[in-house]
Amino acid sequence: MKEVRIGILGGGTVGGGLIDLIAQQRSVLERRIGVQIRIVAVADRSWQKKAHLQNQDFDVTDDPQGVIARNDIDIIVELVGGLEPARQWVLSALESGKSVVTANKALLANHGAEIFELARAKNCGIGFEAAVAGALPVIRNMRRVWVGSDIHEMFGILNGTCNFIITRMQKEGMPYEEALQIAQEKGFAEADPTFDVSGRDAAQKLAILSSLAFDHLVQEKDIKVEGITELSPLDHAMALRMGRVIRLLAVARKDGDGYLLRVHPALIAQDHLLASVEEENNALFTDDKYSGSTMIVGRGAGAFPTASAVLGDIAALARPASSPEVWLSSGKAVRASEDALYRFYLRFRTVDQAGVLASIAHELAVQEISIASMHQEEGPEPVDVVILTHDARESQLEKALTRINSLDIVHGPSVALRLEEPGRH
Amino acid sequence: MKEVRIGILGGGTVGGGLIDLIAQQRSVLERRIGVQIRIVAVADRSWQKKAHLQNQDFDVTDDPQGVIARNDIDIIVELVGGLEPARQWVLSALESGKSVVTANKALLANHGAEIFELARAKNCGIGFEAAVAGALPVIRNMRRVWVGSDIHEMFGILNGTCNFIITRMQKEGMPYEEALQIAQEKGFAEADPTFDVSGRDAAQKLAILSSLAFDHLVQEKDIKVEGITELSPLDHAMALRMGRVIRLLAVARKDGDGYLLRVHPALIAQDHLLASVEEENNALFTDDKYSGSTMIVGRGAGAFPTASAVLGDIAALARPASSPEVWLSSGKAVRASEDALYRFYLRFRTVDQAGVLASIAHELAVQEISIASMHQEEGPEPVDVVILTHDARESQLEKALTRINSLDIVHGPSVALRLEEPGRH
Repeated sequence: MKEVRIGILGGGTVGGGLIDLIAQQRSVLERRIGVQIRIVAVADRSWQKKAHLQNQDFDVTDDPQGVIARNDIDIIVELVGGLEPARQWVLSALESGKSVVTANKALLANHGAEIFELARAKNCGIGFEAAVAGALPVIRNMRRVWVGSDIHEMFGILNGTCNFIITRMQKEGMPYEEALQIAQEKGFAEADPTFDVSGRDAAQKLAILSSLAFDHLVQEKDIKVEGITELSPLDHAMALRMGRVIRLLAVARKDGDGYLLRVHPALIAQDHLLASVEEENNALFTDDKYSGSTMIVGRGAGAFPTASAVLGDIAALARPASSPEVWLSSGKAVRASEDALYRFYLRFRTVDQAGVLASIAHELAVQEISIASMHQEEGPEPVDVVILTHDARESQLEKALTRINSLDIVHGPSVALRLEEPGRH
Repeated sequence: MKEVRIGILGGGTVGGGLIDLIAQQRSVLERRIGVQIRIVAVADRSWQKKAHLQNQDFDVTDDPQGVIARNDIDIIVELVGGLEPARQWVLSALESGKSVVTANKALLANHGAEIFELARAKNCGIGFEAAVAGALPVIRNMRRVWVGSDIHEMFGILNGTCNFIITRMQKEGMPYEEALQIAQEKGFAEADPTFDVSGRDAAQKLAILSSLAFDHLVQEKDIKVEGITELSPLDHAMALRMGRVIRLLAVARKDGDGYLLRVHPALIAQDHLLASVEEENNALFTDDKYSGSTMIVGRGAGAFPTASAVLGDIAALARPASSPEVWLSSGKAVRASEDALYRFYLRFRTVDQAGVLASIAHELAVQEISIASMHQEEGPEPVDVVILTHDARESQLEKALTRINSLDIVHGPSVALRLEEPGRH
């Protein structure tokens, strides 16, 4: 199997996540991309203090330029962040003909032109999915799926810290300072939160996204930025009275022969999809002439989500061009479960007479299905009886329903709907 | 410039959209993917009746096998749909060494194994982003970004017809039949809606998605399916009373050493992201061990959205492996707009005395900013005055705010938030 050899600069949280992810999913990755990913070296100036950099089967060093210079490395993964020395390291890597994967939004938002130009000149790949909204595939989507797009506007919720603070203020009526403190306690905000709450972090991400959307260089300095520090509980209450909620939006819009580029707290309609983006989530809403309105939403940060995006970029650079395009290496079919536990919503149409509820409850009890609540609508016959069950087996419910539907007191087949709890398992 | 030559089978709505999209975005596409996409031939059995197939610079024929056999075609785009003869044509194309792009969910959900196996044997690419949820990048994301994923559950709203009917029932309290009729009038439902409302369409899409998520073949027949025809307005009302809404969900979940695979109407919490997916929108909510909970939402159908997904697949197959990875062909920076029209939400902290509102209103009037509504909170000084303006220029607002903030009656700087209307331009 072909091998792709990577060197990682920066062995912190995301670097550690990447090392774990590659180790945990090794066999899955080989099957899916047909390439073996091997970490050759990690450079980290305080590697001695990091447990996840001890006793590994790769070299660990405090010399990034040494890693960049190695001949047995194909891809440099830059996870150091900041402008310098990250800029020099990325340029050195490209200069030496290596492809680069980076999560560094500040670097691309300020020195994107220089870096992309060198990558082009050297015919090297450069991946930066992780620079914006972590695992959300916003970059890939714009670069690879919507290749024919004509995006006229984009709205991003690109900073999880701000969104957490804003939704806490909105839902609990608390002042900014209190919401910030909770964010800090939960690890969603830094001790010095300025970079996030001023809107700068979102502006750097918007610079990258709008460069891709509009095919022209947008830099951080092109974007007008306002932060969230002046918001008060009254603003949220008044917004609500107007049928709106406040979000820190990163906005890019075609405007004549130029572009409107803004990061600012704004009032949006309460029933808009973006208003449903709460807590530390990130989102990007895009309006494209061809693909229509689309939103991608999810967690924008964290070690594994960011590592997941970095890994996707590594795979894209590593995968042989001729690689067959589907993962299903085995034609083996899945085993589909026949039976499962669910809470059920049940509706029966019945006659309105004594003993009806008892008869239905009895048939459920026979199948060991326990009732959480019961409701009977008043009205002319047939009347509707609605029952919510506790967890019940599908197979047992089916037996009970067969019996109940055959009762004289029940008109027509009953309705059974499951309760689903997405994301709460 | 390298040229990629495509043959299209099926010149209907999506085919027409693809032809238009390639023509309209020709120069953008060349810049973005570094390849010229040339339509060589279109096969359509009733091409004579279709305006968009007349007087084009490609060949038009009613002989699909003739197109497949041509030596001057690299990629076959199958937009015919259905099982046969689409299956034979796709197999022939792969057999002849051509890559295939298809939007055919039925084909992949029932004959995926055969097709993927032949593609692998012939080392041909196969793209099928358009088979599920149109322009939403759900396939690409799973195949290319989350390569290290360990997805334990997925929830899809994969049928726009059903979602339209369900949300109409929910919001307007109308019976199923009435909502169906509106869907038919709006073109969201077929004259015979059985395939959609029975849940089969969603099941075919779920088969494709879960095959990718779980690396094993899932076929339509593995999925337990319930449709939406038995739902009543009472079910929606009762669900609401439980803090829930009803959606037709396609569910795939790891379950022991097997998989739970279902399409059924289910009750989900009203504040869940999936509950915000309304009307004809589609969505996929994924829970991955590494990238976390993510949702992609948007229009899942239509000529251009589907064509956009097909085009993304063509580009992925056409793009040279060594192609530099960034679109920014010019380092030219964008022109950022300095001034823009917005409705503003304004908040001032003022003393509570006669003439305050008049003074503020006067300064706004001087800058031709007209007031839509005004609200003053009762309470001890300083009091908050909130104003909503009609459209105003940022530059003029700034001038007015500078003046107002310098008034003795105003305490501290005022707050100005913009109203944004994402997707309503």
